[in-house]
Amino acid sequence: MLGQIRIVLVGTSHPGNVGGVARAMCNMGLATLTLVAPRCNPHDSEAYARASGADSLLDTISVHDDLGDAVGDCRLVVGASARSRTLPWPMLTPRQLSERLSSELSSPDARLALVFGREDTGLSNAELQRCHAHVHIPTNPDFASLNLAAAVQVLAYECRMACLMLESAGTSETSAPVENTLTVDTEEPLATHDELEHYFSHLEQTLIDIGFHDPATPRQLMARLRRLYQRTRLDRLELNILRGILTATQKRAGDNHDKTS
Amino acid sequence: MLGQIRIVLVGTSHPGNVGGVARAMCNMGLATLTLVAPRCNPHDSEAYARASGADSLLDTISVHDDLGDAVGDCRLVVGASARSRTLPWPMLTPRQLSERLSSELSSPDARLALVFGREDTGLSNAELQRCHAHVHIPTNPDFASLNLAAAVQVLAYECRMACLMLESAGTSETSAPVENTLTVDTEEPLATHDELEHYFSHLEQTLIDIGFHDPATPRQLMARLRRLYQRTRLDRLELNILRGILTATQKRAGDNHDKTS
Repeated sequence: MLGQIRIVLVGTSHPGNVGGVARAMCNMGLATLTLVAPRCNPHDSEAYARASGADSLLDTISVHDDLGDAVGDCRLVVGASARSRTLPWPMLTPRQLSERLSSELSSPDARLALVFGREDTGLSNAELQRCHAHVHIPTNPDFASLNLAAAVQVLAYECRMACLMLESAGTSETSAPVENTLTVDTEEPLATHDELEHYFSHLEQTLIDIGFHDPATPRQLMARLRRLYQRTRLDRLELNILRGILTATQKRAGDNHDKTS
Repeated sequence: MLGQIRIVLVGTSHPGNVGGVARAMCNMGLATLTLVAPRCNPHDSEAYARASGADSLLDTISVHDDLGDAVGDCRLVVGASARSRTLPWPMLTPRQLSERLSSELSSPDARLALVFGREDTGLSNAELQRCHAHVHIPTNPDFASLNLAAAVQVLAYECRMACLMLESAGTSETSAPVENTLTVDTEEPLATHDELEHYFSHLEQTLIDIGFHDPATPRQLMARLRRLYQRTRLDRLELNILRGILTATQKRAGDNHDKTS
């Protein structure tokens, strides 16, 4: 299960922090580290010094220009955030995140990305809105700024604890998975990040086509719709239905547009 | 309760680690740091650099020659240990430790000491045997050596979580509703049943208007859409957006229908 979890660092500026994250991950049994637009060389000697022997993890880092590329195949994308800003988003504590892991990762090809922002400014609103949910480590409000490696340490620890408890539960009793009451037990695979992003592009274009949305005055419309559809955890069949509706709508709008143009 | 917890570092050799521990403690709301026979100057500039602003905690460090002096007034002394060595000792996980906190610290003058050993050799057997219990952070056996600040971070996080849960249990008589954890904490009221039903009627009519839905061959379309929108717990503002989209869609479809009819 830990092998299905990816740590994604966006815009990291200190190689020592990359190394510290690698060490924390190795300590907790996580192995996949992805950087998005790093502002430092992750193979700097300072990274290896702080990694204290987690060299193979540093050696296998993948680097992307864009967050979407880094999490495209993930079914659940969770961003670390001090607090949701303008628009409230589904918010988990690290404990709540770990409690969901067994159901989220029950399918062996499911992938979870935990996304961490820049040391100085965190994740941007656009990046946070690419996430299904946000996770907040409940720090002391008077001294809230966690070191990047410390934040990864806490979440990785919770993930490891969840796995260990699952293993011990699996060997002792056949305990029923703790299921979210508003979750559907469906055969359909959940939509991936890429599939959702295609849907959001299609949705936005359709809303423009029907004259409902003006990108020049967005008024949080797409942010609200992203939040809605990401928290509902669409499966692939549902996504196909929604895209079918958009295509039918565009056809009508297009027909009409042909008439009026 | 967090004020009753003392972090004790034995024989620390790197001032940066003292600073990192101070930062981790401050982040989690712990305030009392005690050193036993440090092998470095805890007021070195490197300590302050790594403390990232937790200066007042570094300024008030107390230093003892002997572990016994550092923990003399404590009712519970717990030593961090990779594994009990010669003689098995009561062993807690960090989670089990945090679960004990409320009973251990129910008396306001009770004190708990969490004792951490040297970076290279940990605590000696004699020091471990001064402890009531040992706490083991379940690291990856292939990469088990946690940085000192990371170990303090994990235990301090567990202590903070225990305190927060205790506080929320104390204040809310009416237990929190079993909510989908991907729920947004929003000011908007959730949509009522009636409002949802109006939406579903509007949605169905719109899908007919754009030629996507034929009530004669429903193929579970409306059932799937109902399930989707009901599990997502729409608030009133979101419902208004969705109905606005339907109205805009119908207007286009209607215009078009006027043309073709």
